[in-house]
Amino acid sequence: MTKLPAKADFPVSQVRRYLEPGPIVLVSSQWQGKTNIMTLGWQTVLEFSPSLVGLMISRGNHSHRMIKKARECVINLPTAALTDTVVGIGNCSGADTDKFAKFALTAQEAAKVDAPLIGECHANFECRLHDDALVDSYSFFIFEVVKAHVAARPKHPETLHYTGDGVFMVSGKIISRRSLFRPDML
Amino acid sequence: MTKLPAKADFPVSQVRRYLEPGPIVLVSSQWQGKTNIMTLGWQTVLEFSPSLVGLMISRGNHSHRMIKKARECVINLPTAALTDTVVGIGNCSGADTDKFAKFALTAQEAAKVDAPLIGECHANFECRLHDDALVDSYSFFIFEVVKAHVAARPKHPETLHYTGDGVFMVSGKIISRRSLFRPDML
Repeated sequence: MTKLPAKADFPVSQVRRYLEPGPIVLVSSQWQGKTNIMTLGWQTVLEFSPSLVGLMISRGNHSHRMIKKARECVINLPTAALTDTVVGIGNCSGADTDKFAKFALTAQEAAKVDAPLIGECHANFECRLHDDALVDSYSFFIFEVVKAHVAARPKHPETLHYTGDGVFMVSGKIISRRSLFRPDML
Repeated sequence: MTKLPAKADFPVSQVRRYLEPGPIVLVSSQWQGKTNIMTLGWQTVLEFSPSLVGLMISRGNHSHRMIKKARECVINLPTAALTDTVVGIGNCSGADTDKFAKFALTAQEAAKVDAPLIGECHANFECRLHDDALVDSYSFFIFEVVKAHVAARPKHPETLHYTGDGVFMVSGKIISRRSLFRPDML
């Protein structure tokens, strides 16, 4: 059994640190006693404070219906060590599959929402639906991150970035250009 | 002088190939004879067909005002070779700077919009504003990609992914899990 990464509270206004680079995420949800997980790559940060994130959760997904009702979810950040799990989760449906059981993932209790955290992930962002104005027209949910949990190490986890066609780009080297930024742009 | 990459037409329904991995992009625009460029990391794919992309273009940017009026832009994909240019563009304002001139970039004529393509970038996606419903509330512009130009090589360009704080993650190795996907999920 894999040891779960130890996590600490993380400022919600800084979740762009993990989401702006564009990783694949696992979105967990709960409705009427049942949990679900989906793999998602269509996400963007929208605001620092309140901490807003937009997710395009396609209507064809069982998670769309659950999250529309529950109005809560958790955005979990998997590392490349979970690649096959990420793919497996994206290739079956929560309508007929208990994904936590099937993929032997650890459902942990969240602090502020009723959806479960995925213990194996590097970070977990608890979200409440902030605005559903574009849910019917574009399946675009605007969430507020109300609590963030992040593993202290590694500082730069290997994340997965999906290109379509079954192919992922894994995050690579880190470069700093901090010295070239105006202080107010950092 | 750098040789500009040779580009070919690319299907607009497949731009997720380049945008879903979450790269930093350069957004070029034109209004009343003046051009501008901004660096942007808050973007997401929203639909395959029509080819929809959402960009959060903060109100503080000169580009916000120009694009709101012009209702068009070009999303340009820089590679890591352009890192210092990407940072420079993000740290000055089009209100008092001609960014094409300052950064010695080549403005090329687009096929379907009035905004210029950036010749030095790996790909250029010509966009028309599709829906401004969330522009006033979230500075979130929904664009339709109406024409795409992509360099044939390299197949996997080194892209930049911003983490905040002046630090970029560069894209790394490519892994395929195509064999694990259901055919209808590819």
